[in-house]
Amino acid sequence: MQEFLKALTAPSAVALIGASDDAAKLTARPLSFMKQHGFPGRLYPVNPVRDSVQGLKAYPTVSAIPDQVEHAYILVGNERVIAAVEECAKAGVKVVSILADGFAEAGPEGRARQADLIEVASAAGILLIGPNSTGVVDTRHGFSCTTNAAFRADKLNTGRLAVISQSGSLIGTLLSRGDARGVHFSTFVSVGNEAGFGVGEVGAVLLEDDGIDGFVLFMETIRNPGALADFARRAYAADKPVVAYMLGKSDEGQALAVSHTGALTGSTEAVHAFLTSIGIAQVSQFDALLEAPSVLSKRARMAGRPKHVTVLSTTGGGGAMVIDQLSLRGVKISACSEASRAALEAQDIPLGQGKLVDVTLAGTRYDTMKAVVSQLIDDPETGALVVATGSSAQFNPDLAVTPIVDAVARAGDTAAPVFAFPIPHAEEAIRLLESGSIPAFRSVESCADSVALLMAGTAPSLRPDVTLPELAQTRLNVAESGVLDEIEAGAVFTAMGLNGPAHLVLSPDAEPETGPLAYPLVAKLISRDLPHKTEMGAIRVGIESATDLAKAIEDMKTSVAEKKPGARISGVLVQEMGQGLAEALIGVTRDPLVGPVVTVAAGGVMTEIYKDASVRPAPVSLDMARAMVDEVKAFALLRGYRGKPMGDVEALAQAVAAVSALATRADVQEAEINPVLVGREGKGVILLDALIRKH
Amino acid sequence: MQEFLKALTAPSAVALIGASDDAAKLTARPLSFMKQHGFPGRLYPVNPVRDSVQGLKAYPTVSAIPDQVEHAYILVGNERVIAAVEECAKAGVKVVSILADGFAEAGPEGRARQADLIEVASAAGILLIGPNSTGVVDTRHGFSCTTNAAFRADKLNTGRLAVISQSGSLIGTLLSRGDARGVHFSTFVSVGNEAGFGVGEVGAVLLEDDGIDGFVLFMETIRNPGALADFARRAYAADKPVVAYMLGKSDEGQALAVSHTGALTGSTEAVHAFLTSIGIAQVSQFDALLEAPSVLSKRARMAGRPKHVTVLSTTGGGGAMVIDQLSLRGVKISACSEASRAALEAQDIPLGQGKLVDVTLAGTRYDTMKAVVSQLIDDPETGALVVATGSSAQFNPDLAVTPIVDAVARAGDTAAPVFAFPIPHAEEAIRLLESGSIPAFRSVESCADSVALLMAGTAPSLRPDVTLPELAQTRLNVAESGVLDEIEAGAVFTAMGLNGPAHLVLSPDAEPETGPLAYPLVAKLISRDLPHKTEMGAIRVGIESATDLAKAIEDMKTSVAEKKPGARISGVLVQEMGQGLAEALIGVTRDPLVGPVVTVAAGGVMTEIYKDASVRPAPVSLDMARAMVDEVKAFALLRGYRGKPMGDVEALAQAVAAVSALATRADVQEAEINPVLVGREGKGVILLDALIRKH
Repeated sequence: MQEFLKALTAPSAVALIGASDDAAKLTARPLSFMKQHGFPGRLYPVNPVRDSVQGLKAYPTVSAIPDQVEHAYILVGNERVIAAVEECAKAGVKVVSILADGFAEAGPEGRARQADLIEVASAAGILLIGPNSTGVVDTRHGFSCTTNAAFRADKLNTGRLAVISQSGSLIGTLLSRGDARGVHFSTFVSVGNEAGFGVGEVGAVLLEDDGIDGFVLFMETIRNPGALADFARRAYAADKPVVAYMLGKSDEGQALAVSHTGALTGSTEAVHAFLTSIGIAQVSQFDALLEAPSVLSKRARMAGRPKHVTVLSTTGGGGAMVIDQLSLRGVKISACSEASRAALEAQDIPLGQGKLVDVTLAGTRYDTMKAVVSQLIDDPETGALVVATGSSAQFNPDLAVTPIVDAVARAGDTAAPVFAFPIPHAEEAIRLLESGSIPAFRSVESCADSVALLMAGTAPSLRPDVTLPELAQTRLNVAESGVLDEIEAGAVFTAMGLNGPAHLVLSPDAEPETGPLAYPLVAKLISRDLPHKTEMGAIRVGIESATDLAKAIEDMKTSVAEKKPGARISGVLVQEMGQGLAEALIGVTRDPLVGPVVTVAAGGVMTEIYKDASVRPAPVSLDMARAMVDEVKAFALLRGYRGKPMGDVEALAQAVAAVSALATRADVQEAEINPVLVGREGKGVILLDALIRKH
Repeated sequence: MQEFLKALTAPSAVALIGASDDAAKLTARPLSFMKQHGFPGRLYPVNPVRDSVQGLKAYPTVSAIPDQVEHAYILVGNERVIAAVEECAKAGVKVVSILADGFAEAGPEGRARQADLIEVASAAGILLIGPNSTGVVDTRHGFSCTTNAAFRADKLNTGRLAVISQSGSLIGTLLSRGDARGVHFSTFVSVGNEAGFGVGEVGAVLLEDDGIDGFVLFMETIRNPGALADFARRAYAADKPVVAYMLGKSDEGQALAVSHTGALTGSTEAVHAFLTSIGIAQVSQFDALLEAPSVLSKRARMAGRPKHVTVLSTTGGGGAMVIDQLSLRGVKISACSEASRAALEAQDIPLGQGKLVDVTLAGTRYDTMKAVVSQLIDDPETGALVVATGSSAQFNPDLAVTPIVDAVARAGDTAAPVFAFPIPHAEEAIRLLESGSIPAFRSVESCADSVALLMAGTAPSLRPDVTLPELAQTRLNVAESGVLDEIEAGAVFTAMGLNGPAHLVLSPDAEPETGPLAYPLVAKLISRDLPHKTEMGAIRVGIESATDLAKAIEDMKTSVAEKKPGARISGVLVQEMGQGLAEALIGVTRDPLVGPVVTVAAGGVMTEIYKDASVRPAPVSLDMARAMVDEVKAFALLRGYRGKPMGDVEALAQAVAAVSALATRADVQEAEINPVLVGREGKGVILLDALIRKH
């Protein structure tokens, strides 16, 4: 990896294939930017029709260069790219980045071209960046090997964060906005179409770089969730925050699935759950991309501290704005502890009475502010501290901000983390704060966004150690592909410990018999051809007598004969009507972007209308399943809502974890139990209807 | 008003009561700031213990000043405020602002002090600002009569927007952030506790000022909704946008607003609905407070244009960010019309295929960008145009931005409005755009926030011309105060055209008789003492026979005797069970901040859990009622959801409008019909249970 890292970000020799001599051309930029920024490596323009390019000797091909080129940026049109990569392979180039578009995003021809490209690059063991890449930049040594115009900036500031972006233009935006914000980067990689190395693979290479403390991702899609997960989990373990801004919402997933789970779970929720599960912090404000990494770097200081925020201000209105925005993002606010209050009031420092610690104008005195900050950050009952400084931050940063810096400097490494939001425009105050290692924010929304991420925690979820019971495996093995019928699917779920109500199966034309079953009953036609029984009229509930049952079976057959002629009916399932406090739906589907996910919801039309569901990458642990059940608002009905009895949420969570294990079978396309009836506390759950679709 | 306007913002003579000679003191600031900024009026410090203050002769009282003082700022402690106001009254001072706190927000003693203050000021016809006011500023003539430290800025830039703020510190924040943003103000008023003139009253005075084109409000509560409404409606009519940032969006924020300003806080939804109904545009991003006014000033250009936005970009990623953020705020996105596409493609300009008009790097040529912008803004099918410019905005504003400015300059006043979001940090581009009268944004979120307000429209709702039918009035007049019983309340609603199911009333001890009613039936005990019948066991549904009915009545009596002994039972209401597609709840309540509101929801636990309700100030017109019904997600069940039949949403809307008319009676404290059963299209609604509480 170290070898690739060097070739990617600090190559000794670089070829620019198709570099133009005309400074106005896009393809002239990488060479001119690298010369501008003093890149110390050797630069070789490749241009078969010229002897020199921008004052450097030009070569007809990469192989003609009398040097070991480590990194090549291909700037020619897409029809000439593959030949150029073949040349690079011949010349032993380790890293190749490609500017051209017209590959996977451009119809069947482009897709074929991309497939060829991947084949050539993989065979040669090349680390491929792009196509559709605006290039790679390392600011530490002027390696501005990019076509992005922003890198013609007079000076490339260097920092300790890396940018990996699926959008080529955004690397320039982050450079430019970061500069204005005092946030600087070591590295920028535009991964484009990710034909070879994508966000996860490039991230893994950059993890080897000791000069990188964190990652900023701009993402439009997820192409290789496995590589992304490996990178993000390793970055978390190495204490290097990964912060992402994710564009867009995909509808592709929904059309594919047969079940209601599919319709319920848009990719947005699945993608968000996936990124969270692998430890990637997602910001909703663009500016927080620049501001969150420094906040998350304070993670260690939250160890053992309560997960709440104290807001300290010299100005009521500004402090209230901060509390408002934090609360909107679910952050708990806490005033100071009784001990701190007593200690500070003994020094005649006013703190106000509400959730805001409001030291009023008194706090614009150096001694007061320092005393308050010191007291609060040494207090083990403080979580994190956000100081919202008023107008004094603008005109008297020495009084308003220096005491905060001094208090933090004086305190130990285990003091509570401190963040600052100067309410007015106060650049000098921000500079002072950040030089004292106190993250400071330009906007209240970005402040709240970043601090909320720290409070929520960004630890990746543990990979659950779940297995599907052997009997369930066997039953799945013997089932034909397609939609399993009720009996087959029920048998799989029974093997997983999920039982339906007492029932019996009648042959389609037999005389109705109900044996030991107690009325009222439910009857359903058993068929692999009828996944949607209600719409087909293939289910009847509330059957009160044998006469009713006989009539119900006739009615169902008539309805199906009319609505789905030719549907094969293998029997009639007769069940007791279960009783429970509420119904739920549990489903496993395969998201086109992030792979298997498990969903739990209350089911029914209201759940669809309100999109009230919890989604996670599957499988999930029992703990995670409990958290999912907690998230579903409708399950208030199981949590003693308005004096109702408590429901068996624990059994529901166990069912979620059990069903999620179906995701471990690659041949299970989707599975759903809907509804599952949740009984009172301790009474378990009863599966009423089940569906499995096998590949 | 003009007289007050002059005294408020451009007084000829100003008294500073309690002004300090010590420059370090807060109370020294107004005088020193006005001297610093060259206020041309006459300044009189009032200080009984000094001969001079800051080099000016000091007077013992206002009455001792040998001049007609127009504006006095009282800087003394709260215990000396009333005496000072009495002095001002004697001296004929027109406007008095007060710094001190310790009034309505400070317990019973403070409230009594505020009441006294109001009495003195009203008797003298004084325009009272505060208490708890950091003062009044008019930048056009250096009238910086404020204690807010931000106004020690080297220079006060002047503009054409006025700030009215309930938070005293925020006037400084807006000055400072506005300066950094190039947004400048004519006037700042810190209204504090609004004991005398509040946001609405001050706004009405400032509406007389021809130098003010729009208003920026920072609000923590609403104390005088009537005055605020009058001001906002007049401002809209005068084409002066009013933009507000309202604190208390979260529950925590609401709690804080109470403790901070000593205000009552109503529900967030009611406040939002109220502000919308009077034409106040509410921003969610703080920066949009500064940016939205210029966007809303383009309102006239939207006349006759479709309410959608075209996003034009030279960079896919940046353009997608804009579309994402606009869509999140419910803004419709539209690519260009077929006519424009054809016209531009004829000039070989690429436009991309998706919703984003992506001219790629080609758009960084002057001619291309100008041609595209001209084509789009002259096209009647364009709504508004947002141009997201890429890195070229930073380095080549002449190429990236000047063509936009030129295209807009060339076009007429009826061209579509154009907004710009430079994706990188690009101050020069923003300056160029704004000098060309094109609002430009620093953040994608603020851009989306402001443009979404323009698309939603900010016209105040028409005051509906509704009256309660005379018979309903009479029935309300004769009812005793308290909770009306079922028969009384039902009679009122019947007089309003809202009928229940077929029913009859039995005397409490009579033999049950059902006459022409068809089973199944509902029975309820009639009583003014039992507003919550279900909890009391005073209602029975699904009664199938005369025997059942007799038993139900006995059971209800037993239950009530046990749960509410002594409850007076005046009869038994027996009703047919209505049939409908869905249930709804319609209620009228009095919000503590904004007054009467009408709510419609589906009712039931799910509505509570999901807070799925539509709220508006009451009464509402039928059109507004239709919009309310449209807003309730659960009513998807009435709109043909998943093949269900259509419900009578029109009858439901009529019922909402009818019930809302109850708000015109000051003596109706609350009224609710819950549930009301909504039948199929054309079948109307049936009122099942009604409640009216009279004062």
